[in-house]
Amino acid sequence: MAERKGKTFTFEKEIRVLSSAGVAGRLEGEGPLGKCFDRVFEDTTMGEACWEKAESDLLTAAIRTALKKSNLEEDKIDAVFAGDLLNQCISSSFSLRELNVPFCGMFGACSTMALSSLAACLAVESGAMSTCMAATSSHFCSAEKQFRFPLEYGGQRTPTAQRTVTGAGALILSESHSKNLPRVKAAHLGTVQDLGIIDSTNMGAAMAPAAAKTISDFLRDTNTLPSNYDMLLTGDLGLVGSRLLRELLLKEDNIDISTVHQDCGLMIFDRDSQDVHSGGSGCGCCASVLCSHILDEMRRGKIRNLLFVATGALMSPVSSREGESIPGIAHLLHFVI
Amino acid sequence: MAERKGKTFTFEKEIRVLSSAGVAGRLEGEGPLGKCFDRVFEDTTMGEACWEKAESDLLTAAIRTALKKSNLEEDKIDAVFAGDLLNQCISSSFSLRELNVPFCGMFGACSTMALSSLAACLAVESGAMSTCMAATSSHFCSAEKQFRFPLEYGGQRTPTAQRTVTGAGALILSESHSKNLPRVKAAHLGTVQDLGIIDSTNMGAAMAPAAAKTISDFLRDTNTLPSNYDMLLTGDLGLVGSRLLRELLLKEDNIDISTVHQDCGLMIFDRDSQDVHSGGSGCGCCASVLCSHILDEMRRGKIRNLLFVATGALMSPVSSREGESIPGIAHLLHFVI
Repeated sequence: MAERKGKTFTFEKEIRVLSSAGVAGRLEGEGPLGKCFDRVFEDTTMGEACWEKAESDLLTAAIRTALKKSNLEEDKIDAVFAGDLLNQCISSSFSLRELNVPFCGMFGACSTMALSSLAACLAVESGAMSTCMAATSSHFCSAEKQFRFPLEYGGQRTPTAQRTVTGAGALILSESHSKNLPRVKAAHLGTVQDLGIIDSTNMGAAMAPAAAKTISDFLRDTNTLPSNYDMLLTGDLGLVGSRLLRELLLKEDNIDISTVHQDCGLMIFDRDSQDVHSGGSGCGCCASVLCSHILDEMRRGKIRNLLFVATGALMSPVSSREGESIPGIAHLLHFVI
Repeated sequence: MAERKGKTFTFEKEIRVLSSAGVAGRLEGEGPLGKCFDRVFEDTTMGEACWEKAESDLLTAAIRTALKKSNLEEDKIDAVFAGDLLNQCISSSFSLRELNVPFCGMFGACSTMALSSLAACLAVESGAMSTCMAATSSHFCSAEKQFRFPLEYGGQRTPTAQRTVTGAGALILSESHSKNLPRVKAAHLGTVQDLGIIDSTNMGAAMAPAAAKTISDFLRDTNTLPSNYDMLLTGDLGLVGSRLLRELLLKEDNIDISTVHQDCGLMIFDRDSQDVHSGGSGCGCCASVLCSHILDEMRRGKIRNLLFVATGALMSPVSSREGESIPGIAHLLHFVI
């Protein structure tokens, strides 16, 4: 039985990452983490006629690679928890259509990697399932088409805009006593926060308050400090959102995360040499970084105590056109090894 | 600890419905279940300037009514599990923005009521949460606008088409030993099924194979027969999908559900006097029917042993335009009292 304190729950079972895989596109492959991904696809059409199918193929590649690395057949997976940014989550649904595995559809926008992993942990902890997968994807071209402008339009992006990562991540969770596998020790489900940001080209600012609240609540619930962790890894706040998060935590809660904070959106690209403005974003950003580089660093013992906080902007182009501000959310997982 | 057999899990805890609420629009209020809903809104704009906000208000009304009926304050709810059919699930996100409660976003299309309840049960069973809410909504006008044609176009619907229900449902789940509250005894997470239906005006046919598989798998896992249940209630297969489901189960698995099968999409409207073609559909269809009429019938002891099977069509207008067939999914909950 998981133990609750505030809104944070600690798992009794040793729920560990049996395997994980992060895949990415060409530009991500040319970035600082290029060599860390399990697969890099030079042709981001994936040989498909449309971007949605290409994204779905990326997700399938991450899922298949994670399965292969675990040496498990798909019938050993009790369920896949997955979602994505496309309308009606078609990247996930169409990818899962190829697998004969129960499917729990999730929606957390760019927080999906944390949300789906959290839900998978609840399933394992409850005993209802033994081995679960969590997965998500995004694709620069399907996201631009759906959320912003057709690529052919050649629209200029604002300095605060982030570049949706073409990538996907998948990880397999199960009870295990192998001390050399990363363990999900605790988790914290976020609450919607909306400070009134209406600029949909500044997602970092819209999501930072949600990250601040989740981090602050978690540290209070667990009576810990940022310095108790090797790394506090946010999903895709980018440059603008990361600065805001540090500022918010410092000014409002007197919490200084500057020595341990990193952001997947800033790690995945080299902002000096790659044209990505405020950094990377999208479900696939922190999914591909967590499921490759970060969990590998944990397996190597380089990171032993990680807070992973993935943020999501829960808006749609329709809600923005209707004048609504952008609600944000942040879910947290505490990994140890 | 939940017990697994095949893909079905039985909860060890007595997870019961503390309260539930179903709300609906004018047309649904004029239907056979009109008097059963907790609230009927004559003005389905809900006083808002756009349909998405109206749908979100409906969901809020269901959530608030369920809370009121439970006599719980919102801070006693550990999380709300919710989702809807709108792009990026904005009905749920914007509704949840008003509540200061952790939010687990789900995507299951019209299966969301079963999916979100199932996930909430896993959270309670795991011990991570004590009291959870599951909720979902749909609105005829927001669905037509997004999935089909603008209402002003006055498009004709095909005979197989269903009418999206304007409605929402919410229920609160917690461990309880009150024998007079409906209990979720077991659940079964569905697997994506796609038999190649490409007609997006015939969702019942697209979803029937998924319902057949989930029902057949559940009956085999539990070694039970349809006659062991008072009612086998499907979500929104409508007339065409319901006939197909019965036929599929009879021909392929020799399972006859005709004496116990009912469909929320057929119950909510009077097809003779209301212009709804093949019946009702949408997340709000089975959500409003389950959370009002059906659970009330259980509380009255009229239904003691219910299989609730909600189906979803995991497509988007984009996937249909790209020539894809429609993947279906069905999730099952077994309620007893």
